Amino acid sequence: MSTYKLYYWPGIQGRGEFVRLAFEAAGATYEDVARLPAARGGGVAAMQKLMQGAAPQAPMAPPFVVAGDEMVAQSANILAWLGPELKLVPRDAANRRWAHQLQLTVADFVDEAHNTHHPIATHFYYEDQKREARKYTAGFLENRVPKYLGYFEGVLTRNPAGPRHMLGKSLTYVDLSIFQLIAGMRYAFPRAMARTESGYPNLVALHEATAQVPNVARYLASKRRIPFNQNGIFRHYPELDR
Amino acid sequence: MSTYKLYYWPGIQGRGEFVRLAFEAAGATYEDVARLPAARGGGVAAMQKLMQGAAPQAPMAPPFVVAGDEMVAQSANILAWLGPELKLVPRDAANRRWAHQLQLTVADFVDEAHNTHHPIATHFYYEDQKREARKYTAGFLENRVPKYLGYFEGVLTRNPAGPRHMLGKSLTYVDLSIFQLIAGMRYAFPRAMARTESGYPNLVALHEATAQVPNVARYLASKRRIPFNQNGIFRHYPELDR
Repeated sequence: MSTYKLYYWPGIQGRGEFVRLAFEAAGATYEDVARLPAARGGGVAAMQKLMQGAAPQAPMAPPFVVAGDEMVAQSANILAWLGPELKLVPRDAANRRWAHQLQLTVADFVDEAHNTHHPIATHFYYEDQKREARKYTAGFLENRVPKYLGYFEGVLTRNPAGPRHMLGKSLTYVDLSIFQLIAGMRYAFPRAMARTESGYPNLVALHEATAQVPNVARYLASKRRIPFNQNGIFRHYPELDR
Repeated sequence: MSTYKLYYWPGIQGRGEFVRLAFEAAGATYEDVARLPAARGGGVAAMQKLMQGAAPQAPMAPPFVVAGDEMVAQSANILAWLGPELKLVPRDAANRRWAHQLQLTVADFVDEAHNTHHPIATHFYYEDQKREARKYTAGFLENRVPKYLGYFEGVLTRNPAGPRHMLGKSLTYVDLSIFQLIAGMRYAFPRAMARTESGYPNLVALHEATAQVPNVARYLASKRRIPFNQNGIFRHYPELDR
C-alpha cells in the first residue's frame, strides 16, 4: 500500500490521535496532511476541500484517511480497516469484531469526555457553559468514569490470554487507544485520577507498558506528538477536577 | 445461522431499533429476548445476566446480538456483522466500510438527539435539566440538525447509482437507519421538521419509500414495533420544539 494520508485538525490530538498512535506503533509511513505546509499540498484548506468536494464518499468530519483508492472516515472505522494491515489486531473475523466493539466503546467515552467542557454546544466557548460543565462533569466523574473504566478493567481481567492486553496476547490498536484514554484522563482530571486509578491496576499497567513500546516511546518523545492542550478533547480546567 | 437473539431494553425503540429494522426488513427469524417472558428465558434479568457475566466478551451495554458462537454489541458493529448475511449491504469490502461509516455518523446524530433531553446526566430526570435541555436543543435544531441532514442529503444526491438509496441501488441497513432517524425527528420535533424538511427532499423520499417496503410496512403495523414514547431517544417535549 502507498503512503497513508491522514487528515485531521493540526493543532490537537483529538480523535485523530487514535489513528496517529496506530501508524506510529506499526512504524508505518504516513503523512499528517493538515500539518504540512500548503506548498506541499497540506494545510486545513486541503482537508476541507476533500470534505466539501464532489466525491460520492466525502466524509462529514475528520479524521479520515486516504490510501490507495479509498477515503475512509470515523476513527474506529479507520482502525478496523487498517488494523490487519498494520498488524495491530488479530486476523480472524470474530476477534476483529471484538476489537472494534471495544474501540466503539472507547469512542463513546471520548464523546462524553468532550462533553465535560462542552455540554451545551460545540459552537459556544467553554466560558459560556461553565456552569453546565460543572454539573455535567460531576456526574461524569462520579458515575460514568467508574462505569467505563470498571468495564475496561474487567475486559483486561477476563482476557483468556492474560491481563496485559485488551484482547489476545500482543499489542492491538485497542491497547493504544486505552493508553490514550488514560493519558487524556490524567491530563484533564489529575486529582480525580490520582484518587481513583488505583482501582484499575490492569489499566494503569497497560498504560505504562504501552508507553514503553519502542515505537510508541519514540513517538511520544517526538515533535509529532502534539501536547495535550485546551483545544482538544481532554482539557484541564481545575474547577472541573474536583 | 441459528435464530438471532437480540438483547435490548423492552420498552423503547432506542438504539436497538436499528437492529430490529434490519431483522424485519430481511425477514429474518429473531427473538427480542428481553421482551419475552422469564419463563421462556426472557426479560431484562436475562439480558443483564449476560452483561454482568464472566464471558470474556461480555458487552458493556445493549443492544447486543447472540448468534452461533458470537455475542456482539454496539448497534453499528452488529449491522456491519450481520449486514452481508441479511443481504442489507453490498458484498465488497469498500462498500461495507462506506456503509459502516455512514452508520457511525447516524450513531453520532443519535447521541446528540439523546442529549437534547439529557444534556447534563443520563441518571437525572429530564425535569431536573430542563433549562439546560432548552439551551442544548436550540443549538441542536439550529446548527447540528442542518449539518447532519445536509450531509446525508448530499450523500443521497451524490450516490452514483441515484438518490433512492444511501449507497448502491438497493435497500441497505443505512437506508433503514435513515428512515428511523427521520421518523424519530418527526416524532420529537414535529414543528421544527415541518419547517425544515422540505430542504431535504431526497431524505424525505427515502423515508417514504422505506416505510413502504413490504416487510418494513408489515413490521411498522405490528405490535412488534414499539411506539415512540417518552423513555426513548427521540422524545417529544413541546417546549423544546420551537
